[in-house]
Amino acid sequence: MGGKLSADERAARLSELNGWQSVAGRDAIERSLEFADFNEAFGFMTRVAIKAQEMDHHPEWFNVYNVVRITLSSHDVNGVTQRDVELARFIDSIANRA
Amino acid sequence: MGGKLSADERAARLSELNGWQSVAGRDAIERSLEFADFNEAFGFMTRVAIKAQEMDHHPEWFNVYNVVRITLSSHDVNGVTQRDVELARFIDSIANRA
Repeated sequence: MGGKLSADERAARLSELNGWQSVAGRDAIERSLEFADFNEAFGFMTRVAIKAQEMDHHPEWFNVYNVVRITLSSHDVNGVTQRDVELARFIDSIANRA
Repeated sequence: MGGKLSADERAARLSELNGWQSVAGRDAIERSLEFADFNEAFGFMTRVAIKAQEMDHHPEWFNVYNVVRITLSSHDVNGVTQRDVELARFIDSIANRA
């Protein structure tokens, strides 16, 4: 699956994504998403859950009502890898609101 | 729906629940649950989501892989109410592992 992205690689990939940023003090990326209501937020989470299971690569995430905050990092290498970028791209592709 | 529980009421209710504790610095209660894997954790979250929608009373929650951490509080009264206790009881009733 490839190893940890270099700082340059990560910066290049982040610039192609929508609304993702580096997490302070951790080699991880995060994005907050806002939906119309809980129903829409949890529907989104369910789509991400199915994708994550398919990839065997899971997010860290927090939800309250219509807000979902997602952190991606690859625990095996303790950093951001191409798999995080792939999951982030999927999330961007199904997120209609931000 | 009833207002905020008094400190005595909250303590009495907490003692009847399984693994819930007060949140430091907030009028809220929380519980962490551990499952076999992500599939089981997200299945649990889906059951809670359906119940929450039915009650129109939603949790704040964090998930990473097989762990779910849930915080309950009633935002309208900024404290713990009978509805939080009801949702906590439901969570306890479907949580096979802790």
